Amino acid sequence: MFATHLRCRDCQAQYDLKMMYACPKCGGLLEVEYDQANLLNPEHILHPDSDFYGLWKFHRMLPLKDTKNIVSLGEGDTPILRADRISQTWELPIDLYLKAEMLNPSGSFKDRPSTMAVSMAKELGHKAVVVASSGNASAAVASYAARAGIQCIVFIPKSTDPGKIVQAQSYGAKVFAVDGTFSDAYDMSMKCAVEYDFPNCTSTYVNPYTVEANKTVAYEIFYQLKGNVPDYITVPIGTGPLLAGTFKGFEELLAMGLITKLPKMIGVQAQQCMPIVRAFTDGSPVLAWQEPIHTIAGGIADPLDGYTKDGETTLKVIDLCSGAMVSLTEEEIKKSTDAVEQLIGLYSEPTGAVSVGAVEKLFHENVIPAGSSVVCLVTGHGFKFTKRSFSSPSVIHTLTDLTF
Amino acid sequence: MFATHLRCRDCQAQYDLKMMYACPKCGGLLEVEYDQANLLNPEHILHPDSDFYGLWKFHRMLPLKDTKNIVSLGEGDTPILRADRISQTWELPIDLYLKAEMLNPSGSFKDRPSTMAVSMAKELGHKAVVVASSGNASAAVASYAARAGIQCIVFIPKSTDPGKIVQAQSYGAKVFAVDGTFSDAYDMSMKCAVEYDFPNCTSTYVNPYTVEANKTVAYEIFYQLKGNVPDYITVPIGTGPLLAGTFKGFEELLAMGLITKLPKMIGVQAQQCMPIVRAFTDGSPVLAWQEPIHTIAGGIADPLDGYTKDGETTLKVIDLCSGAMVSLTEEEIKKSTDAVEQLIGLYSEPTGAVSVGAVEKLFHENVIPAGSSVVCLVTGHGFKFTKRSFSSPSVIHTLTDLTF
Repeated sequence: MFATHLRCRDCQAQYDLKMMYACPKCGGLLEVEYDQANLLNPEHILHPDSDFYGLWKFHRMLPLKDTKNIVSLGEGDTPILRADRISQTWELPIDLYLKAEMLNPSGSFKDRPSTMAVSMAKELGHKAVVVASSGNASAAVASYAARAGIQCIVFIPKSTDPGKIVQAQSYGAKVFAVDGTFSDAYDMSMKCAVEYDFPNCTSTYVNPYTVEANKTVAYEIFYQLKGNVPDYITVPIGTGPLLAGTFKGFEELLAMGLITKLPKMIGVQAQQCMPIVRAFTDGSPVLAWQEPIHTIAGGIADPLDGYTKDGETTLKVIDLCSGAMVSLTEEEIKKSTDAVEQLIGLYSEPTGAVSVGAVEKLFHENVIPAGSSVVCLVTGHGFKFTKRSFSSPSVIHTLTDLTF
Repeated sequence: MFATHLRCRDCQAQYDLKMMYACPKCGGLLEVEYDQANLLNPEHILHPDSDFYGLWKFHRMLPLKDTKNIVSLGEGDTPILRADRISQTWELPIDLYLKAEMLNPSGSFKDRPSTMAVSMAKELGHKAVVVASSGNASAAVASYAARAGIQCIVFIPKSTDPGKIVQAQSYGAKVFAVDGTFSDAYDMSMKCAVEYDFPNCTSTYVNPYTVEANKTVAYEIFYQLKGNVPDYITVPIGTGPLLAGTFKGFEELLAMGLITKLPKMIGVQAQQCMPIVRAFTDGSPVLAWQEPIHTIAGGIADPLDGYTKDGETTLKVIDLCSGAMVSLTEEEIKKSTDAVEQLIGLYSEPTGAVSVGAVEKLFHENVIPAGSSVVCLVTGHGFKFTKRSFSSPSVIHTLTDLTF
């Protein structure tokens, strides 16, 4: 509502609020800028618009001009749950919370950027949207496109397991398999977006509007923890817009005088694909991940091939808040998933649970000190992980066959 | 909080508030009774307790004594979405809404009865709970048991597809396959419940506390439609506690003076298994369904074998509100599911979508008149339906290969 222009994150050049994916001058990523004096009114947070569900209660903090263009399925307002059974079992002297982002309508946090992107597409009068994704993002964008009555076009690499696109297809999305890698699928989505003027809703930093919706995670945590800012927020990341958007939300709350400190943001990757962790640890530029990838956390296994700039953007945020990056082994990821499911009762895909294992690791590495408060964003539903093993139940004939 | 005793639905005998499953005198189903004078205070609805999420905001309307025993994953407060694209596409002159019950934490409305049942189990000091279910109910009970740190024991018939118990097992539930039918599994759950004093949380009417949680659907609709009562509410039903509980909630709102009319309740079954529809249509007693069952709406395909009394209880509610029962063919169920997914953007299992197809059918049968307002409860997530077909996407090499 108070958005004024797009600004290049690199050269600071300004552009009108339309669908753009990179600075025409320098190729930098674009960000939404606002009329700060009007945006930073604490009333927008303290008295959100109760005519809308979930994250759209905060529509005055978002770039959409007219609320009649909101395309919503009730996303946002995901619960925060205390995770005492995890901190006790793992002997962590930490005030631990999980934010259940998997409870968004299509089953992942990607509903936040997608509701924003499709609403902007509607406001700008587009008849179709495109997305390169073989997972949560394609499902999310397809669901909002169905809600809006807009065509959704999905690009996946040819090697994608067809089972992963069932959800997007069920919403009516048209799926194309690109002969090549994910990078090729991404390139094709961009060519299609430019050629046909269909907004690209791929949930990297490419669409400047999508990251804005992630700010609402901060507003919700502010409410849910009754104004207390957690010391750390751990976030599973492929490229990092959720981490960056959440931090931007807290920066706004600080600028409004509603909070007095900022959280430290922790990005979490799988050791099997950790281009941003590697750059953080080595103090080197972000390079595309070339090694083979074998991980159960497929949703964050993004080699950043062709858009390492996204990784740099995330590292700038980590640097700004004195945060950290950390990676988990496959065993640690499995342990995290089991803990979220068996100690908390939330069904979680392994990707989404890495934020929890990160806390244990960083506590033992003396990065997160005893007595800290930590919110873990648990980003994807357990239903998304279809390759689960299960044990054949014992067959019983009488009550005496029961063994506990 | 204001619950005073259990009362037999048949002979009206009263019992203390403990875990009981049938009237010891006559075998009738039990219901929770309250101190009505204190329960029916409009303040409990108009100023719910904002310290709690979702349905537990209304804890003063529920039988739990102490809020410290609440076992919650943030269930309830599911969005209501206007379904104009369905009413337009199907040419229904009806004000149509979907209540997205599939967005509860474990993926179905069963989280309502389960959070109630497991919270009561905790309050009454039990160390384990049992449930007979090969689907949504076992997942729901297992998730709350995990949240509470209580053992969950699931009974399924031996013939159950092992894939259907993956979710319950992931939460840590212990699953036993009973040599026999679902009735045998149900009998075994009851024997186990009685022998070990483990509350039976099976989501028929057997556990008198579970149905109470379904009242909160009415309170939420009251808020979401700003005090307007829909003319009809359509509900997918196996036995019917969701329908009965929702109606009970509206009866309370009426008694409080917050609304001036009651909705007509519509129960929906699949033609492949419709014991309650048959009794409604024929004006005959409810008989167990003996015919073979082949339906994609497995979640409501309950033959009621051994508990036809549940069907009678539901029919009493239908009669009281001048409601109706209706059944859908497999083709109609498929069409309903596609509509919910492709016209609204909500991923839905076929079971959950039958409430939507029922509206079209009853409009054309002149049961639901033009100009009516209807809320359809869409009860289970699309992830629950694992036997989806999908089409292999076209492989493209260049932008010119694209066809829309």
